[in-house]
Amino acid sequence: MMKRIRLGMVGGGEGSFIGGVHRIAARLDDQFELVAGAFSSSPEVAKRSGETLFVEPGRSYESWQEMAEQEAARSDGIEAVAIVTPNFLHVPIAKAFIEKNIHVICDKPLGVSLAEAKELAFLINQSGSHFILTHNYSALPMVREARARIANSEIGDIRNVEVEYLQGWLNDRLELTDNKQASWRGKAQFAGAGAIGDIGTHAWQLAAFVTGMEPESIRGELLTRIEGRELDDEVFAEMRYANGARGRLWASQVAPGFENDLRLRIVGSRGSICFRQQQPEILEIHPLYGNSYVVTRNGVNNHDSIRNQCRTPAGHPEGYLEGFAQIYREAATKIRGGTTPLLPGIMEGLSGMRFIETLRASSDQGGVWMDW
Amino acid sequence: MMKRIRLGMVGGGEGSFIGGVHRIAARLDDQFELVAGAFSSSPEVAKRSGETLFVEPGRSYESWQEMAEQEAARSDGIEAVAIVTPNFLHVPIAKAFIEKNIHVICDKPLGVSLAEAKELAFLINQSGSHFILTHNYSALPMVREARARIANSEIGDIRNVEVEYLQGWLNDRLELTDNKQASWRGKAQFAGAGAIGDIGTHAWQLAAFVTGMEPESIRGELLTRIEGRELDDEVFAEMRYANGARGRLWASQVAPGFENDLRLRIVGSRGSICFRQQQPEILEIHPLYGNSYVVTRNGVNNHDSIRNQCRTPAGHPEGYLEGFAQIYREAATKIRGGTTPLLPGIMEGLSGMRFIETLRASSDQGGVWMDW
Amino acid sequence: MMKRIRLGMVGGGEGSFIGGVHRIAARLDDQFELVAGAFSSSPEVAKRSGETLFVEPGRSYESWQEMAEQEAARSDGIEAVAIVTPNFLHVPIAKAFIEKNIHVICDKPLGVSLAEAKELAFLINQSGSHFILTHNYSALPMVREARARIANSEIGDIRNVEVEYLQGWLNDRLELTDNKQASWRGKAQFAGAGAIGDIGTHAWQLAAFVTGMEPESIRGELLTRIEGRELDDEVFAEMRYANGARGRLWASQVAPGFENDLRLRIVGSRGSICFRQQQPEILEIHPLYGNSYVVTRNGVNNHDSIRNQCRTPAGHPEGYLEGFAQIYREAATKIRGGTTPLLPGIMEGLSGMRFIETLRASSDQGGVWMDW
Amino acid sequence: MMKRIRLGMVGGGEGSFIGGVHRIAARLDDQFELVAGAFSSSPEVAKRSGETLFVEPGRSYESWQEMAEQEAARSDGIEAVAIVTPNFLHVPIAKAFIEKNIHVICDKPLGVSLAEAKELAFLINQSGSHFILTHNYSALPMVREARARIANSEIGDIRNVEVEYLQGWLNDRLELTDNKQASWRGKAQFAGAGAIGDIGTHAWQLAAFVTGMEPESIRGELLTRIEGRELDDEVFAEMRYANGARGRLWASQVAPGFENDLRLRIVGSRGSICFRQQQPEILEIHPLYGNSYVVTRNGVNNHDSIRNQCRTPAGHPEGYLEGFAQIYREAATKIRGGTTPLLPGIMEGLSGMRFIETLRASSDQGGVWMDW
Repeated sequence: MMKRIRLGMVGGGEGSFIGGVHRIAARLDDQFELVAGAFSSSPEVAKRSGETLFVEPGRSYESWQEMAEQEAARSDGIEAVAIVTPNFLHVPIAKAFIEKNIHVICDKPLGVSLAEAKELAFLINQSGSHFILTHNYSALPMVREARARIANSEIGDIRNVEVEYLQGWLNDRLELTDNKQASWRGKAQFAGAGAIGDIGTHAWQLAAFVTGMEPESIRGELLTRIEGRELDDEVFAEMRYANGARGRLWASQVAPGFENDLRLRIVGSRGSICFRQQQPEILEIHPLYGNSYVVTRNGVNNHDSIRNQCRTPAGHPEGYLEGFAQIYREAATKIRGGTTPLLPGIMEGLSGMRFIETLRASSDQGGVWMDW
Repeated sequence: MMKRIRLGMVGGGEGSFIGGVHRIAARLDDQFELVAGAFSSSPEVAKRSGETLFVEPGRSYESWQEMAEQEAARSDGIEAVAIVTPNFLHVPIAKAFIEKNIHVICDKPLGVSLAEAKELAFLINQSGSHFILTHNYSALPMVREARARIANSEIGDIRNVEVEYLQGWLNDRLELTDNKQASWRGKAQFAGAGAIGDIGTHAWQLAAFVTGMEPESIRGELLTRIEGRELDDEVFAEMRYANGARGRLWASQVAPGFENDLRLRIVGSRGSICFRQQQPEILEIHPLYGNSYVVTRNGVNNHDSIRNQCRTPAGHPEGYLEGFAQIYREAATKIRGGTTPLLPGIMEGLSGMRFIETLRASSDQGGVWMDW
Repeated sequence: MMKRIRLGMVGGGEGSFIGGVHRIAARLDDQFELVAGAFSSSPEVAKRSGETLFVEPGRSYESWQEMAEQEAARSDGIEAVAIVTPNFLHVPIAKAFIEKNIHVICDKPLGVSLAEAKELAFLINQSGSHFILTHNYSALPMVREARARIANSEIGDIRNVEVEYLQGWLNDRLELTDNKQASWRGKAQFAGAGAIGDIGTHAWQLAAFVTGMEPESIRGELLTRIEGRELDDEVFAEMRYANGARGRLWASQVAPGFENDLRLRIVGSRGSICFRQQQPEILEIHPLYGNSYVVTRNGVNNHDSIRNQCRTPAGHPEGYLEGFAQIYREAATKIRGGTTPLLPGIMEGLSGMRFIETLRASSDQGGVWMDW
Repeated sequence: MMKRIRLGMVGGGEGSFIGGVHRIAARLDDQFELVAGAFSSSPEVAKRSGETLFVEPGRSYESWQEMAEQEAARSDGIEAVAIVTPNFLHVPIAKAFIEKNIHVICDKPLGVSLAEAKELAFLINQSGSHFILTHNYSALPMVREARARIANSEIGDIRNVEVEYLQGWLNDRLELTDNKQASWRGKAQFAGAGAIGDIGTHAWQLAAFVTGMEPESIRGELLTRIEGRELDDEVFAEMRYANGARGRLWASQVAPGFENDLRLRIVGSRGSICFRQQQPEILEIHPLYGNSYVVTRNGVNNHDSIRNQCRTPAGHPEGYLEGFAQIYREAATKIRGGTTPLLPGIMEGLSGMRFIETLRASSDQGGVWMDW
C-alpha cells in the first residue's frame, strides 16, 4: 500500500506567506505529510510554528543543519524537504539535504548567483535526489493547454512572445517596515535580485515553458523606481529567437493598481493565444481564419493531460493554490519513480539565474544585446 | 496542544466528485484528518477507496451503520463525519451519527423531504452535536464581502434580488449512462428533486445569505425540458419581500454552453452589487452616484473579516475549493467551541427543503403565490 | 439621378435628446435632407432651433398642423416626417401627415393607447404612406446576426428568452426638475406609460425580433419604486410560448449604476446566444458541444446581410447612432420602393401598445396570466 | 446666420474605405456640406462617385489640379478640402489647396518623407489656411478623459507609456489582390511606409497626446514578416523620456485574430490608466490606494469638456465614427475662428514623419538609440 511522502520544511514559520502556500500545496492532493521542520531562524518562532503545524516537538528543529543531520539519521526520516527561505539560503540548504539523499522542493529563484546554481546543478547531477523548483504558474492547466496547442502547431510559427508580470505592492518602501515578505526581498544580501528575481524569473520561465523556445540573444534594463531602494523594482527584456520571433518581457513591482497581473500572449503565423494568471480558468484563442474562442479549464476540447490534472469541473474555479499543488503532485510522482516531463527543476533554475545575470550585464552596458 | 479533528466520511468512493471535494476542503487548512470511512455501498469499492485514501483497513467500513457503531465505541473514534452520499441517505445517516454524539458535515440539499428534515432538526436541537450543511458558495470571500456591504447599508434598501444558476451538462440524458454524478441525480428515489434541489437550493441560500432577507411569498415553476427525464431540470421562482423588494431565481441544468454560472445581482436604492461564481475574485459595485468599481479579494477595502479568511494575496486566485475549505475551517472552529455566525447549518437545510416543497406546490397549482 | 429624400421633423428642438439622434441618424448615410420642421410648441424655441439646423426660415413652422398643410401644398414639400415629440402626440401627428400622403418615421412607443394605435393602423393600411417605428436596437448588426443564426436553427429549439433593460437615471425624481427628457416622461398625460413604455417596449420588441416568436400568454407587474412618482418605473413580465419556451423581461429605470443595460440571452436546445447593447460589437455564442466563441461585427463568419450593413471594419466600433441610422437607411430604401423585411413599423407599434395594456391589466389583477 | 462649410474631397471614390469615413465624419455634426470632389484618378470612377455622392456634375472633377483651380475661382467655391488619397499624394495636394487659401483636412500619415512634410509645414506657416491631420483616436472621449486626468496629475509622475496597435488583416498578401485598401498600402512608392506609417503613427500620436510628453530618445526595429512583402508589417519602438519614464510601442498588421486592437496603458507613481480602442466607452483607472474603477463616457465624473463632446448618453455607445466626427467638428470650429487646442495638425504630422524616419534609421543600424 502506498504511503504519503514524509516531508520536512525549512523556513515558512509565522508570518511567512510562501511557506503556507507550500504546505497547502503539499496537502491538497494528500501525497505528503509534514513531519519535520526548521521553520525559523528564531528558536522561539520555530517552536511555536511547529506546534501550530502539528509537527512533533522532537522534529521541530532550531536549525536546518540540525534537521538535515537528525532526519537523515532516522529510519522514518523525511524523504523530501521544502525550502521556503529567503533566496540566499536556497542553495546552501538544498546542498545539505541533497548530500543526505533527501529530495528537494525549492522555491524560486534558484539562488543568488549563477555560480552557486551551477555548483548545485553539479551536485544534483551526481546524486540520486530530485530537485524541483516551484515555478508554479507553469503548472496551471490553461498554461499547459497553451503549451500543448503551440507544440501541436495550432498557431503556426511563433512570431511574438509577449509576457509581463505587473504588481503594485512595492510602490511604498515596504522593505523598511516589518512586512515579512518585503523586508528580505528588498535587500541584496538576502534576495540577490529584486523584481527580476522575484517575478521576472517567473515570466521568463513561463515564456520558455509555453513556447518551448529559448532565445538566441537578449537585452534589457533593470530599473529602481523608488528612490533609496537597494534593488531593481522594474525590469524590461527583449528577446530574439532563432526562428525570427521577437519577445518582450516586462516585470514591475511598482505598477499601481496591478495585483499579480502575469499575462502571456503568443502570436503565431496561424493564430494567437492569450493567457492571464488572474483569470486562470480560460485561454483565449484567436485563429487566423475563424472566430476567436475561449477554452475553459476542464471544459470542451481540453487536451487529455490537462483534463486529468483538474480537480473540479469546468466553471468551478481552480486557482493559484491548485496550480501550486500540481507541482507537489508531480513531485510525488517523480519521487515515486514516475515520469513528469513538465515539472520544473534545476534546468529552469539555471536558466533563471542566467537570465538575471545576463540581463543585469546588458543593463549595465546600456542595454546591449547579449548572446543566450 | 491543539490536534486535528478526527473525521470520517460516508460515501465519496471511487468516481465520486463531491467526496473528493470534501476531502480537499477538509485538508486545505489542516484542521481535520480523515481516519475512517464507509466510502461505498459496494464493499469492493469501499475497500479500494479506503486504501487510496490512506485510511487504516480496520476503519474502512462496509456500511455506515457499522461505522457509526464502531467509531462511537473507540476512544480515538471520529469526532465528525462528512456525508457525501446521494440525497436520500443524508438524513438517515445524519441521525445515526448525531445519536452517537458525532458532529455532522453534510452535503446539500438536506434531504428528500421537509418532513424528514424537521425530524432531523428536532434531533439536532436535542443533541450536543453540530450540524453543518455545505452551502459552500456562501463562504466565498466576495460573497461575504457583498453580504457585509449590504448589511452595512451601502446599497440602501434592497429592491431586487436576482439570482441564477445555469448549467448545461444535463442536456444529454447522462442519467442513463454510467456517469456517477448524473445517475443518482436523475432518479427521484435517490435525489428527491432535480435542478431545484441540486442547484436551486444553492441559489436560494445564497440570495438569503447575501441579503439577510427571506421573502414573504414565493411562486414558480418546475420544468422537465428533456423528454423522458424523471425530475425537473429547470426551475423558475419569483419572490416578494416584506420591504417591497422583488426577487427572481432561475436555475437550469439544460442551458447549453453554461458551466456553473451562478450569478447574483442585488439592486438597492443607493447602489447595486454583482457577483459571479465563475469570477470569484471580484465584486462589482455600482453606486448610485459615483463610478462603478471593483472590489478584489484581499485587495483594498475588504472588510477585515473577509481579509482574514484569505489564504493568498489579491491577484492570486482562490476559487471553489478554497470556498469549500472555508466551510470546513469554520466547522472546525465550531466543533472547538468557537463562534461561526456565517456557517450554514440546519436552518439553511430546512429553508432549502421548504423552498423545494413550496415551489413544487406552487408549480403544481399553475404558479400561484404561496406564503413563505 | 437619385436625390436625397426631403425630410421634415416635428419636435426635436433645443434641449431634445432624441431629436438630435434622429437627425444624425438621417444624415449618417446621406439619404435624407432636413428641409422643414416644427421643432417646438414654443414659437421662440422653434425659430431658434430651425436656424441652428439650417432650415429655411419659411419652412420652420410654429405648429405641426401648419407644417402638414404647407408642406403638402409645395411641389418640393417634404416626402417624410420624423416625429420626435412626447408620446401623446405621436398618433395625432402621424395621422395628420399620413393623410397628406407623407411617410412617417416615428419614435417609440407608438402612442398612449392601443385604441389610438389601431386607428392609426387602419389609416396606414388605407394609405400609400409608409410608417416606420424607430425600434433602433433591432437594427444593430449583432442583434441581426443573432436573429439570423436563430432563424437558421443554430441553437435548436428555443427554451428561454431572457431580456432586460436596466437604467438608473430615474432614481431621483428628475421629472420634477427641468430635465427635458424626464419632465414629460414622468407624466401620464404626456407619456402614457412609464418604464414599460419607454424601455419595456424596446425589450419586448427586441425579444420578438430576435426569436421570431410571440408568446401565447404573458403576465407581470408594474411597479413605482420612487414615492410620489405618477408612472411605473420598473416592470417585470413573464412569457409563455407555444413551443414550451419560457420568457422573462425586466426593465427598470431605477437600478443604480446601470446606464442602458439592455441584454438579451436566448437559450436553445443546441446552444445559447448572448447580446449586450453596451457592447454592440460582439455576440457570444455558446454551442452545446464546442467552445464558446465570439462573433464580432464585420468580422469572420458574419451573415452577408449583416456585413453589408456595416460602415466600418471589425474592431472600429459602431454603436448606437449607427444602429439608429440603419433604420433611416432602410426607411429610405422603403420610401424608394425597396424591400426592407427587418424594418419595424406599425405591427411592432401595435404589439408594443398591446404589451403595455395587457401587462398593466395583468398587474392590476395581481399578476394573472393573460392570453396574448 | 451660420452656414455649413463648403467641403471638397480628393480621393475617396468607389471602393475607398477612408473616404466614406471622412464623409460620414463631416456629416455627423452637420457642419459641412460636400459640394465638390476629385474622387478618383479614373475619370469614369470619379464621375460615378460624384453622382452617388450627390455632387453637381460640374463640380465632380477629373483631377485635383483642376478642382483646385476651378473651386478657387468660384465665389461659392470650397472652403476646405479633405484629402483621402494614398499617402504619396497627401503633400502635393495639400500644397496645391493651401496655395489657393483653402483649408486642408488630411488623412494620416502626413506624407512619405520628413523632407516634404517640412516643406508643407513651411508653406502652412506662411498661409492663412488651417491644416488638420485626422489622428482620429485622439478625439475619442475616453482618450481625452485619460489625457485630462493625467494632465491633472491624477496618476502622479508617469513611469510607463505602453501602447500597441495590433491587426491581423495583412497576414495574407492582400496587396497582391484587388483589395483597394491593401494594394497601395503594400507598395513603397504609394505608401512610403508600411505598418509604421499606417498604424504606428496612430499609436505614436496617441501616446504623446495622452501623456503630453515626447521622448528624449527612441530605438526600435521594423520587420517584414510576410516573405516578399515590400514594406514593414510590424514595428517595435522603445522610448526614453526626460523624467525617467520608459515607453514601448508595438504595431503589427500580422497578428492573427486581432482586429484594431489599439491599447494604451499609462503607469504613474500614483495610479495607472488603461484604454482600449475596441471598448471606447470606458476608461479603467487603477489608483495606488483604492479600488480600481471604471469611467464611462458621459457617465459620472467625466471632465466637462469631455461631456460636452458626447452626442449620446452613457450606455448608448459611440464609436469610431463619432471620434472621427469630432475631428471634423473641431475643424469647423477652427475654420470659423474658434479655439481647438486638442485638434491634431501639422505638428503631429511632422512628429509622425520624424518617428518613421528616426525609427527606420535606428532599425537599419541594429536598433541603436537615436536622439529625439
